[in-house]
Amino acid sequence: MSKQLKSKPRDDDYRMPGEFEDHKQCWMLWPQRTDNWRLGAKPAQRAFADVAHTIAKFEPVTMCVSKEQYGNAREMLADNIRVIEVSNDDAWMRDCGPTFLKGPNGQVRGVDWKFNAWGGLVDGLYFPWDQDDRIARKVCEIENVDVFKIEDFVLEGGSIHVDGEGTCIVTEECLLSEGRNPHLDKGQIEQTLKDYLNVEKVIWIKEGIYNDETNGHVDNILCFARPGEVLLAWTDDESDPQYSRSLSALKILESEMDAKGRAIKVHKLHIPTPILITKEESEGVDAVDGTLPRNEGDRQAASYINFYIANGGIVFPIFNDPIYDKLAEETLKSVFPNREIVGVFAREIILGGGNIHCITQQQPK
Amino acid sequence: MSKQLKSKPRDDDYRMPGEFEDHKQCWMLWPQRTDNWRLGAKPAQRAFADVAHTIAKFEPVTMCVSKEQYGNAREMLADNIRVIEVSNDDAWMRDCGPTFLKGPNGQVRGVDWKFNAWGGLVDGLYFPWDQDDRIARKVCEIENVDVFKIEDFVLEGGSIHVDGEGTCIVTEECLLSEGRNPHLDKGQIEQTLKDYLNVEKVIWIKEGIYNDETNGHVDNILCFARPGEVLLAWTDDESDPQYSRSLSALKILESEMDAKGRAIKVHKLHIPTPILITKEESEGVDAVDGTLPRNEGDRQAASYINFYIANGGIVFPIFNDPIYDKLAEETLKSVFPNREIVGVFAREIILGGGNIHCITQQQPK
Repeated sequence: MSKQLKSKPRDDDYRMPGEFEDHKQCWMLWPQRTDNWRLGAKPAQRAFADVAHTIAKFEPVTMCVSKEQYGNAREMLADNIRVIEVSNDDAWMRDCGPTFLKGPNGQVRGVDWKFNAWGGLVDGLYFPWDQDDRIARKVCEIENVDVFKIEDFVLEGGSIHVDGEGTCIVTEECLLSEGRNPHLDKGQIEQTLKDYLNVEKVIWIKEGIYNDETNGHVDNILCFARPGEVLLAWTDDESDPQYSRSLSALKILESEMDAKGRAIKVHKLHIPTPILITKEESEGVDAVDGTLPRNEGDRQAASYINFYIANGGIVFPIFNDPIYDKLAEETLKSVFPNREIVGVFAREIILGGGNIHCITQQQPK
Repeated sequence: MSKQLKSKPRDDDYRMPGEFEDHKQCWMLWPQRTDNWRLGAKPAQRAFADVAHTIAKFEPVTMCVSKEQYGNAREMLADNIRVIEVSNDDAWMRDCGPTFLKGPNGQVRGVDWKFNAWGGLVDGLYFPWDQDDRIARKVCEIENVDVFKIEDFVLEGGSIHVDGEGTCIVTEECLLSEGRNPHLDKGQIEQTLKDYLNVEKVIWIKEGIYNDETNGHVDNILCFARPGEVLLAWTDDESDPQYSRSLSALKILESEMDAKGRAIKVHKLHIPTPILITKEESEGVDAVDGTLPRNEGDRQAASYINFYIANGGIVFPIFNDPIYDKLAEETLKSVFPNREIVGVFAREIILGGGNIHCITQQQPK
């Protein structure tokens, strides 16, 4: 039983916890669309399975999967992964799944945002997206979790990061994009975030990672390690188009205080060497009118920031990068000394347009 | 997380509780196939919703529904019904769902029998049945319940009834049918029931209700009210083909003792006036090769025995029968003095081949 609530989380004293707080489990969605994932999605499925099995070392994992892929997913995933049938349009649980909140007595509820495939008819990445838009409610109903339903407000889970203590960070590139909520101005959008995440302060950085097809989701460029500390995707190469984006974010973070009045400590996490789609990779994807093409030579929005914080662990993407994989691991070890740091080879995930954080969604304990 | 167990329930001291013991919830499946349910399954959906809403007065209800029917079912069902996407071939949760067992410390596990649509290629009622056969596992996985998986043994939940204290009743008509387990003899089938339901004694009656397309499921002709007491479908009309069937069952019950050595007290529950399919009802069903036809004039296997025992309630089928609806209610009130007796108009369910017990499955607390 899962009630649809008309109230706002702020009214009921529910807040979004930081990802670094304790989880009950992690939710994922199984990839299958052959116009986004090469070679019938088989390499991506292997990568998603690797991510699931790695996270399952730290906390329970539930994989949602379509009717068509149920048998295959159940076979490719170990018995300790819970597999549940949920129809979908693609595989990004961070973005179409519920945002889980915690109440004053530790109860959990979900927020069911409107989902429109990162821009709807303006610049959405595929059509239709009706199955994805139902996933948040379905997940909450499986868990018997009540739902704060918000009408007429488009948001993806990857476009927000919170510290669990009243601060939220977003990008203007995404939240002010024409394909999301053009009927609302910046102040109204900020108020909606305050009402539905129960935060006091929203920090707006300008842009996300270069060439990110999500209109610059914040979860690919920075995240909270804990209250008062942020990891920021970085490059020292001033000729890289990412440089000015990261520098701008750094300046804003250094000039802002969080909701508790603290200055924000920033840890730089160097991006990998640019990852370009190969001819073979491009040719493995079905060309379908209306879906974002995967062209040879396109630079992928690869970033080590796109990791998942599990109970006692960090599961982060690696790219067989001879320099930066190792550097990322060291940085993460120094920032998270009490968590085990595990890399998962994630080229097949970034080829689909996101990474480990994008394909996961934590449910708090 | 739901482990697939190779052990047998008897080895692990798990037993099937009586339906009259406490439930956590009731599982159902949403009807949609237009070659079994007339008028696009709309009248049946209304009837299933009535059953769900009635049971929900006594205990939580989860309705499983296909991708195609999800939106409609979610709309037709109240918020207090949990709706979960589960692909299916038809709507008989009793028969394709798991049989839930309880362990020595109150833990719950499921049995995942093989399902072949009541007779497979011999005399099954539709083809294919692969989605139905996956439902038991899916339900257990949703609930994080471990599963006793039995290979190569066909059984439906409606073909067994237990008293929770070591006794099981089945019909020879069903369990010895050619379409179930022709590779096993009666002794081997009985041993399998003893191993997987953890019972000491199996009572075999000969046949079920006349013209029952399930090959005479026991749950349409009799059930336990409590240990030592059975309700039996009855008619006093010696010219009715049901008479000899019920009389034979009565004689066997009177001559047997249960697993605890008790004589069995039998309460007669009179069947309704014969229900025949009307021309209009017949014409509302799609004619599809390979699915059992619904012909005008066919007598339905209607029986008041096909009720559901909920926590504190009995939800039983009524047919607008001027005599026997009332008589059934009175009998049920006398046999279950501590439960509320609620009738639900169920003609649309029996037109599909079963009734309230067939479309429900209890999960013990």
